[in-house]
Amino acid sequence: MPKNFKTIGLIGKKYANADVGEVLVNLSNFLKDRELDVYLDFNTLRNTPALQNCNSMSRQEMGEKCDLVIALGGDGTLLSAARSLAKFSVPMIGVNLGTLGFLTDIPSTQINERLAEILDGKYTEEERMLLQVTIFRDDEEINASIAFNDVVVHKWEEARMLEFETEIDGLYVNKQRSDGLIISTPTGSTAYSLSGGGPIVHPSMNAILLVPICPHTLSQRPLVIHGNSTVELTVSTSGHARAQVTCDGQINLGVMAGDRICIKKLDTKVTLLHPEGYNYYEILRAKLHWGGHP
Amino acid sequence: MPKNFKTIGLIGKKYANADVGEVLVNLSNFLKDRELDVYLDFNTLRNTPALQNCNSMSRQEMGEKCDLVIALGGDGTLLSAARSLAKFSVPMIGVNLGTLGFLTDIPSTQINERLAEILDGKYTEEERMLLQVTIFRDDEEINASIAFNDVVVHKWEEARMLEFETEIDGLYVNKQRSDGLIISTPTGSTAYSLSGGGPIVHPSMNAILLVPICPHTLSQRPLVIHGNSTVELTVSTSGHARAQVTCDGQINLGVMAGDRICIKKLDTKVTLLHPEGYNYYEILRAKLHWGGHP
Amino acid sequence: MPKNFKTIGLIGKKYANADVGEVLVNLSNFLKDRELDVYLDFNTLRNTPALQNCNSMSRQEMGEKCDLVIALGGDGTLLSAARSLAKFSVPMIGVNLGTLGFLTDIPSTQINERLAEILDGKYTEEERMLLQVTIFRDDEEINASIAFNDVVVHKWEEARMLEFETEIDGLYVNKQRSDGLIISTPTGSTAYSLSGGGPIVHPSMNAILLVPICPHTLSQRPLVIHGNSTVELTVSTSGHARAQVTCDGQINLGVMAGDRICIKKLDTKVTLLHPEGYNYYEILRAKLHWGGHP
Amino acid sequence: MPKNFKTIGLIGKKYANADVGEVLVNLSNFLKDRELDVYLDFNTLRNTPALQNCNSMSRQEMGEKCDLVIALGGDGTLLSAARSLAKFSVPMIGVNLGTLGFLTDIPSTQINERLAEILDGKYTEEERMLLQVTIFRDDEEINASIAFNDVVVHKWEEARMLEFETEIDGLYVNKQRSDGLIISTPTGSTAYSLSGGGPIVHPSMNAILLVPICPHTLSQRPLVIHGNSTVELTVSTSGHARAQVTCDGQINLGVMAGDRICIKKLDTKVTLLHPEGYNYYEILRAKLHWGGHP
Repeated sequence: MPKNFKTIGLIGKKYANADVGEVLVNLSNFLKDRELDVYLDFNTLRNTPALQNCNSMSRQEMGEKCDLVIALGGDGTLLSAARSLAKFSVPMIGVNLGTLGFLTDIPSTQINERLAEILDGKYTEEERMLLQVTIFRDDEEINASIAFNDVVVHKWEEARMLEFETEIDGLYVNKQRSDGLIISTPTGSTAYSLSGGGPIVHPSMNAILLVPICPHTLSQRPLVIHGNSTVELTVSTSGHARAQVTCDGQINLGVMAGDRICIKKLDTKVTLLHPEGYNYYEILRAKLHWGGHP
Repeated sequence: MPKNFKTIGLIGKKYANADVGEVLVNLSNFLKDRELDVYLDFNTLRNTPALQNCNSMSRQEMGEKCDLVIALGGDGTLLSAARSLAKFSVPMIGVNLGTLGFLTDIPSTQINERLAEILDGKYTEEERMLLQVTIFRDDEEINASIAFNDVVVHKWEEARMLEFETEIDGLYVNKQRSDGLIISTPTGSTAYSLSGGGPIVHPSMNAILLVPICPHTLSQRPLVIHGNSTVELTVSTSGHARAQVTCDGQINLGVMAGDRICIKKLDTKVTLLHPEGYNYYEILRAKLHWGGHP
Repeated sequence: MPKNFKTIGLIGKKYANADVGEVLVNLSNFLKDRELDVYLDFNTLRNTPALQNCNSMSRQEMGEKCDLVIALGGDGTLLSAARSLAKFSVPMIGVNLGTLGFLTDIPSTQINERLAEILDGKYTEEERMLLQVTIFRDDEEINASIAFNDVVVHKWEEARMLEFETEIDGLYVNKQRSDGLIISTPTGSTAYSLSGGGPIVHPSMNAILLVPICPHTLSQRPLVIHGNSTVELTVSTSGHARAQVTCDGQINLGVMAGDRICIKKLDTKVTLLHPEGYNYYEILRAKLHWGGHP
Repeated sequence: MPKNFKTIGLIGKKYANADVGEVLVNLSNFLKDRELDVYLDFNTLRNTPALQNCNSMSRQEMGEKCDLVIALGGDGTLLSAARSLAKFSVPMIGVNLGTLGFLTDIPSTQINERLAEILDGKYTEEERMLLQVTIFRDDEEINASIAFNDVVVHKWEEARMLEFETEIDGLYVNKQRSDGLIISTPTGSTAYSLSGGGPIVHPSMNAILLVPICPHTLSQRPLVIHGNSTVELTVSTSGHARAQVTCDGQINLGVMAGDRICIKKLDTKVTLLHPEGYNYYEILRAKLHWGGHP
């Protein structure tokens, strides 16, 4: 049964201009006209002078109190929102301010009609997995984060290749020299992983991708493993080893030679709502210029 | 609890020479010394004069009566055996007569020790999915087969590209021009699919790979979908359309323009037995020359 | 100094419809209005009833008597025309009847303006290399052909990989198992070779590309060698060996196990005329959807 | 006619250990026994206590005074030596202290025999091109360097993609988002360029490779252009633009948004001497594990 949405959170693009502000004002009015309670997150409030008298709350509070959160921007905005809200069960909608995004599948030109449908209960609900990464130094946890698209372990400030060992579920896989490794969710398979030569993995899959970046050995190939696996990388202490861990291209964690980087599925999921008739392959066709029509 | 193996089926390489015969004779004696009942399949009997007084049966009977089937040869031998026995629950072991295979993971040099361990109950059991393919012409089923590695739809006797439409679970995916499409199980991901640029997919995954062969559009990329999906291809009637469906590189089915080719998971699985300590990644390292050691 | 064009040959699409006929009639009238002598090749005459009273000649005669040949159709039309006229020095123009082609760079919508410019001497001239292929059986030449895009040696009526040895200038390169090998000119680097994973090679290069099709060994990679090299392939006699040689996807030559296939640069070139301001990278951007503008 | 070698320069590995020292001492004695004058470069002298009474000179002097320079180490040692000596005409030999290198094709185990042959005039001489890179800021040259393998323009201290425009010979090619671009000589085509998906280009070619690193647009592909071309990259000023230029993975030059990076062929070449019977394809087979034998 469709949910009853009463309290709506709005999260806008990180660096917003006046145009974004206008869309947000219109959206806010549209929601208030339907007698819904609307809250902005603090950053969005700061960026949108015209909404200064709007209510605001932290993302933490949004996760606890909202029935629905709408992210306005590009895929980057939704990635950030998803990480903030991952531990809560609040469903999310992505509205794209430019062209279509993989995650922000409602174009801002159709925002009122599509949202009206969803608020009326006409929507498709989809759950997507995230990853958590933990970095250990001498068996002590020194840093941790989560990612919706990908955790990337890559060389940093360094022209030379990185060398690291990979284990999956405690089994040794290989020692690799490359520019790095992309550990991706199915959601992330159409992002950086695709540029690195990875396959497209349907978001319904319980799977983790391991895609080497410019590997020295030509037979190193993208690997798709079970979503319940634990991946563990250790950066070699031999020689040149300045590395970094990046989550969704947005969060950077420093890594030193000898550190262990553990990646596994987060135990909570993100719920995305799509307009009825949502079709993943339609988005692939549009974004990848596949051409051809049904 | 480990199974009690009493009746053993032996399936040898299709084109066997005297050396293969010798291995079979030794193996047969080894099993009879353990007071097990040994049966050859008809083709193996024909190829091995030294075993003419051995009992034999059809593969159908093997599936019904044997507790264990041992395939001796290369991966091709095990692929063929697996398709024959797919609808039965008899577990299989693969012995490789040359170098290590992806599926035939016991080298013939270690055959007695490894088999003794397995017969004593020291083994790892693994289930692997297969595919079934059905070809429809004007809504009538005209041909069907099964595959353990892959179903390949490819141009045939034809220099030009094939054109076909793909649907997954009734959703239109795209119209593609290419030399063909490899639809592969995780098992097949290290076979032809890998040559075509597909990822390595862990055999524990419930997944189907779609890997285009030399696609005309550069943004056509390997796709990994849920193993419960149904894939449907229709060869375009426009222009040049001599095509063929090949299962595991071993079975050819003719296809005409307009035919619909349906591929989905077979409802039974193959059970492989491996010696204890079996490690999929070790086989990848050996076969793909990854270098590096734990 | 620009040439003086008096006698013009017209070569139309192989399978022409009424629309093509109309373009040809307009083009023919346009040329006759400029008091030029216009000749159709025999096949084009047959396909265009409205031009029955036009003069015609064989392609051989065109090569000998025409000052300029215009190919109307797609890239396939120009490939065929170029092979026919390769041994003559007559320059060629490619007009595309559909979307832009790599070789047919004048869209039919701009045909009169662009041609007027070229006939007035405002054009860019470009020479492009071709390949010749000769097949030897027991040291006897059994077949030969030429190619403007590529010579493809591929498996035929056969699901299994082909096995062959490659020598370059008498030096052994490797024994390869794959679906085949594309031996391409720089012109062909944006055709089938690109689908097979080959690089884009600027048409000004004196180079030959060797691009393996679905190679069994992952470290087999596209190879670019000097245009003056001689490539020699020998199809292995071991096992499965039905193969075929295809030139430009249009001409098929049969090959048996043990045959030697020699490929080298043809000693004559094709001269293409382009409108002034012709820019190879502009065509790449348009055809490959690179996006971005100067 | 073979050259008469009298004065020999020795350049050792940058970070040398005692084993390297021993090889150098033996080599030095071997050369002195043949009554040749031997000089170490300053760094090699510093690293080899056992050769403290040896004569030494700067690389500059080596270029001016030596008839032959021997580089001992890995390919990195020869790359560095080649850049230092590029403007001189002194021929070079590469000796590999570990396994075979692409450039250091004499294994240290065969050092005396192979060198004796070469000193006796039995050798193959080969010329190879280099690249020069110049960085302009506001039309002022701010930095320059040379490269034997490759000039890499890449993101630096930055998780996001780089955006830059490429021109070739003044013609706009495209605006690209990627992790960077590898501009490589044929020599460099088997180094980082190969990891990035570039083709192998025979070292006799007069060619420059442009290989995008993890490009955002899937139809961006490796490009091979004429060796006389000038490549010009401009890093976009929009947004995130920390970039760096790296030559041969050894020299780093800082780049700011808006800087123009010009790359073209250096007007002098490196001369490599190989033992007779040197075969480029043999090295490819050994290094890339192609398998198969003539």
